[in-house]
Amino acid sequence: MNGTHHGPADPGGRPDGSRQAYLASVGTALPGDPVDNATLAKTLGVNEEWIEHFIGTRTRHFARDLGTGEVRWSLADLCAQAAQRALSAPGCDPDDVEFVVLGTATPDTLMPATVNHVADQLGLDQVPTFQLQSGCAGAVQALSVARSMIASGEYRTGLVIGGDVCSKHLDLQRDLSGAAPGDLVNFVLFGDGAGAAVLTAEPAGQRVAVREVLNRFTGLGREPGQVIEWFGLADRHEDRQALTEDYKAIEESVPVMAVEILWELLGELDWQPEELDYLLPPQLSGRMTSLITERLDVPSATEISCVADTGNNGNALPFLQIERLLEGMTAGQRALAVAVESSKWIKAGFALEKI
Amino acid sequence: MNGTHHGPADPGGRPDGSRQAYLASVGTALPGDPVDNATLAKTLGVNEEWIEHFIGTRTRHFARDLGTGEVRWSLADLCAQAAQRALSAPGCDPDDVEFVVLGTATPDTLMPATVNHVADQLGLDQVPTFQLQSGCAGAVQALSVARSMIASGEYRTGLVIGGDVCSKHLDLQRDLSGAAPGDLVNFVLFGDGAGAAVLTAEPAGQRVAVREVLNRFTGLGREPGQVIEWFGLADRHEDRQALTEDYKAIEESVPVMAVEILWELLGELDWQPEELDYLLPPQLSGRMTSLITERLDVPSATEISCVADTGNNGNALPFLQIERLLEGMTAGQRALAVAVESSKWIKAGFALEKI
Repeated sequence: MNGTHHGPADPGGRPDGSRQAYLASVGTALPGDPVDNATLAKTLGVNEEWIEHFIGTRTRHFARDLGTGEVRWSLADLCAQAAQRALSAPGCDPDDVEFVVLGTATPDTLMPATVNHVADQLGLDQVPTFQLQSGCAGAVQALSVARSMIASGEYRTGLVIGGDVCSKHLDLQRDLSGAAPGDLVNFVLFGDGAGAAVLTAEPAGQRVAVREVLNRFTGLGREPGQVIEWFGLADRHEDRQALTEDYKAIEESVPVMAVEILWELLGELDWQPEELDYLLPPQLSGRMTSLITERLDVPSATEISCVADTGNNGNALPFLQIERLLEGMTAGQRALAVAVESSKWIKAGFALEKI
Repeated sequence: MNGTHHGPADPGGRPDGSRQAYLASVGTALPGDPVDNATLAKTLGVNEEWIEHFIGTRTRHFARDLGTGEVRWSLADLCAQAAQRALSAPGCDPDDVEFVVLGTATPDTLMPATVNHVADQLGLDQVPTFQLQSGCAGAVQALSVARSMIASGEYRTGLVIGGDVCSKHLDLQRDLSGAAPGDLVNFVLFGDGAGAAVLTAEPAGQRVAVREVLNRFTGLGREPGQVIEWFGLADRHEDRQALTEDYKAIEESVPVMAVEILWELLGELDWQPEELDYLLPPQLSGRMTSLITERLDVPSATEISCVADTGNNGNALPFLQIERLLEGMTAGQRALAVAVESSKWIKAGFALEKI
């Protein structure tokens, strides 16, 4: 970490002439107490050491009660809590919010979009709301849409939210003692949570410039690495799995794509890797994130990860990472985040600079 | 319809200084042959005259085979077909597409987002893709996001898509002979379909300027008018309905909101109602649309509706209306579209002017 100023304090706009967007504050919400591997192993009837070794995740949080299956927090509850925390930060005012964009893979219902229940809980009205359907790239997509809205000159302050309640997919009644590892992974990899950020057209609060956002579909002709189905009236009684994954494809492709994202972002920004103070790598699991961070090979940058503590809670992850980042980030420092969506292969990432 | 030029051919930008977006072409896709009321009544065991009188819809198209339940077209198939038609219009080139935005309430899966399968079918790669989760406002939201992306100056050409496969919610095995009218409505109101438009930063193809897009959450403290649930592993065997509606609230609120949207758009544009050549009213059902059009009371404007022929196919509707609009629209003419999402109450609409 070098911590020096890399250039002018703030160019005030982007190289292509469009307006700059700034991150003013971040808030996050994790449901209930952390669930450790011993508790999870006991509940699911699986081996604790296997979780430690193959997943490398220590704790996670669940919106459902593991014992009773009761849903204690909806996705809307978690998103509203995270947003409230972001909006209560110094330099932010809920009255300034001109739009809300939420990214999620696990909406509470298909209609209404969960973002509208979040707006309701926040006391917002008469503003545009958007909800992006996406897996690990959803938070970045929400950031991208919000940045375009601010760059268009029509909006000055917006709320960007990401969250997922993955435990909706857990069948807690199921006996897992004889389950295949590929099936078990889905029970131990994920967690629930939400995060939010206030985006502004002028520096405010944390004064972090969003220098670049990358969101690029790269799935032409490729089979999906991850599929989550939903069931309608017609097919919900069928006994097929909702969640299927090609772990081999994920393990092979994600590290390669992560390296490509890193260099693509650096290239577009004309930044050198040694100018990076912080690196926010993809948060698949404790173990996978370690492997990918090694491959990214940016020794000058401090790694900011959270998945070993929070579990893979999807679109909450970038906000949890940014929250940790902001604890230490000082003026002039640069951070780069990398996210890969393996569903139909999306490259995602963003670059931040505190001014 | 007056058809005169209302002002300068094209101001080249919007009043707030942001860049203008243009609609270059439109394409639509309806699955299979139209299903008439006699066929639908026979299949479902309901009364044909009741459909004629209370719904006022003559035909609709279904992606599933009514007899076998077989899914013949996915949402991705329909959206790709509509997009291909839009992209094959004069003045459009698939190689120019820099982003894709899809609005839908009924994605094929939760992951991957359907938009990515659409991109794959279109042969697109290395572009940003977005999928907005929304009911009747989804197409307008997609248009709004696309317009902001073009207004930001970062993109010059994008694909906007809207579509829904509502028949995913039909349980064709169910005996409806004793069903309550409120339940029956869901079986006879909806249809399937998709539409797409090419949006550009400079006038091309049809040369229709998108003068304004309205997308405003107005559900603070209001109960949802429409809920569609999806079922995960945990709850999919429960025997509750996926789709529930408050028809009384919808019948009361939608006409009032439609009038508010009309006047709000006219006010923002500083247009007089008699300057409108075409009106695209909300497409709930043949009967509801007639009632709302009467309430909107713009006698100078030609009504452009499709729902009586296509059924309520959600986010396909605005594109089906625009396709009909473009058949007659000449330079200098103005059109205004109104859409209401009753799920958690969203006001939506847009204004077009051919240059």
